[in-house]
Amino acid sequence: MKLVPLFDRVVLKKMVEEETTASGIVLPGQGDKEKPGQGEIIAVGPGGLVDGKEVKMQVKAGDKVLYSRYAGSDVELDGVKYVVIKQSDILAVME
Amino acid sequence: MKLVPLFDRVVLKKMVEEETTASGIVLPGQGDKEKPGQGEIIAVGPGGLVDGKEVKMQVKAGDKVLYSRYAGSDVELDGVKYVVIKQSDILAVME
Amino acid sequence: MKLVPLFDRVVLKKMVEEETTASGIVLPGQGDKEKPGQGEIIAVGPGGLVDGKEVKMQVKAGDKVLYSRYAGSDVELDGVKYVVIKQSDILAVME
Amino acid sequence: MKLVPLFDRVVLKKMVEEETTASGIVLPGQGDKEKPGQGEIIAVGPGGLVDGKEVKMQVKAGDKVLYSRYAGSDVELDGVKYVVIKQSDILAVME
Amino acid sequence: MKLVPLFDRVVLKKMVEEETTASGIVLPGQGDKEKPGQGEIIAVGPGGLVDGKEVKMQVKAGDKVLYSRYAGSDVELDGVKYVVIKQSDILAVME
Amino acid sequence: MKLVPLFDRVVLKKMVEEETTASGIVLPGQGDKEKPGQGEIIAVGPGGLVDGKEVKMQVKAGDKVLYSRYAGSDVELDGVKYVVIKQSDILAVME
Amino acid sequence: MKLVPLFDRVVLKKMVEEETTASGIVLPGQGDKEKPGQGEIIAVGPGGLVDGKEVKMQVKAGDKVLYSRYAGSDVELDGVKYVVIKQSDILAVME
Repeated sequence: MKLVPLFDRVVLKKMVEEETTASGIVLPGQGDKEKPGQGEIIAVGPGGLVDGKEVKMQVKAGDKVLYSRYAGSDVELDGVKYVVIKQSDILAVME
Repeated sequence: MKLVPLFDRVVLKKMVEEETTASGIVLPGQGDKEKPGQGEIIAVGPGGLVDGKEVKMQVKAGDKVLYSRYAGSDVELDGVKYVVIKQSDILAVME
Repeated sequence: MKLVPLFDRVVLKKMVEEETTASGIVLPGQGDKEKPGQGEIIAVGPGGLVDGKEVKMQVKAGDKVLYSRYAGSDVELDGVKYVVIKQSDILAVME
Repeated sequence: MKLVPLFDRVVLKKMVEEETTASGIVLPGQGDKEKPGQGEIIAVGPGGLVDGKEVKMQVKAGDKVLYSRYAGSDVELDGVKYVVIKQSDILAVME
Repeated sequence: MKLVPLFDRVVLKKMVEEETTASGIVLPGQGDKEKPGQGEIIAVGPGGLVDGKEVKMQVKAGDKVLYSRYAGSDVELDGVKYVVIKQSDILAVME
Repeated sequence: MKLVPLFDRVVLKKMVEEETTASGIVLPGQGDKEKPGQGEIIAVGPGGLVDGKEVKMQVKAGDKVLYSRYAGSDVELDGVKYVVIKQSDILAVME
Repeated sequence: MKLVPLFDRVVLKKMVEEETTASGIVLPGQGDKEKPGQGEIIAVGPGGLVDGKEVKMQVKAGDKVLYSRYAGSDVELDGVKYVVIKQSDILAVME
């Protein structure tokens, strides 16, 4: 079974923070600023007309991204944690 | 008696969480993130001009979907639980 | 005396919950989700340009509908309870 | 002295609740739903471009209307109570 | 020194409530509804494109107006109290 | 070093309140209405397309203005206090 | 590894406050006004259609800027602190 996102949503596989440290990114623990999560894109919605506005998808499956933790919905499937999130809540691609 | 949704709304039959576990999806219980519900689409509104914006319906009866639990209205009819929800609150189709 | 709604509003005669149970719909009592009300449409506004957006009326007098309880205004006239509500707060027609 | 409303506003003379009961409308006292007020239209603004949107005035002096009590501003002039309100906060004309 | 308002703003000289009573308008003191202030227009902004929308100025210096007390900014200049307010917060012209 | 504002922002040098009294403007200390600050414009952004809307700059360096104290960001540079503010939060030019 | 921002976002390297004082800017510590942060732009998104509105990027890598501290997301990579922020939350370029 797989998740097919609608509109401008993408499905991310969450990257756990241990991997995070290994990859060189540390999310700071102090302050009240938002701290982004990291994930790998698994599936990308079709884009198109979203709330009356044309949206082009700019990310693709396999991209590793930083995303806003305050956005999106958590889903666990066969023991893997996913996040369904709008493309506009993706902050940056990690290259 | 059946429910015919207006505009961009759809009627979902709620899938109970026991079925959920069986289908391999577990909704995580901790944290303050939104956790989606699951349902099967029973009826789909006509779309068209919604709040002055053109909306095309992208889901159809029979689709199994994840939807935002914070959205929509619960209705119980002949002992079956339904949710009336806007298409834009559907996160992903489960295939 | 009758009520003639403006713009995209409709006047509903409220259906009491006893009728509701008889008709097979039970509104669940637990949880913090919105629970819709039921009503019969008595009068329909002309639609047209509402807040700068074109609105076409899709319901008609006689339709039995589910509507959002958090929307609209209650009015009692000659002992009958009415709700004046925008068409967009109607969730579904019951057929 | 008289009040000339701007844009899409109208000036209503408030109808007191005693008149209200006489006319057959009773405003329910329980619940947290909004309960509309009643008034007679005294003056109507010119309509036209309001917040960048074209508004056509659909009510006229002499109309008796139900209006949203949470909207508008109260003014008392020579002992008579008026409400200055936007046309879109008028719910229905009473005929 | 004088105040030249930008965009769709106007400068009002506040009319004190004693003058108010003399002119026959009494602002009611009870309830939680908004009660308008009164002022005489001293200067009118140029209008034009405001927040991307075309605004035409419909009031002129010398007009006596009712305005929303919750809007605008108070300024005192040479002992006279002024309010700088957007034209859309003017409720009605008093003629 | 100088500050070059983007879009529809302007940089103001704050005028202290002692200067204020000298110039004849007194900001009233009572009530919960907003009280504007005063400043001299030091730099003006280019205007143009801001949040999808065309903005023309109507103020220039040297203008003395009243501005909304609840808007903008304070910066101190070489002992001088500046405010970076959007043009739309400027209430009036003082001439 | 580097961060490639999407849409109208930019990646800033945060400038610490000690550098800040050295460069002559002191952020005031009193009051409840927003105090901007300082950063050097490392990467700039492509701009284009953002939320249905055309955005042109007006800053470039190397620019030193003041930005709104209440906006954006903190990320630490190889011991360096970055902020991912929308261009519209940049207040001014420091030249």
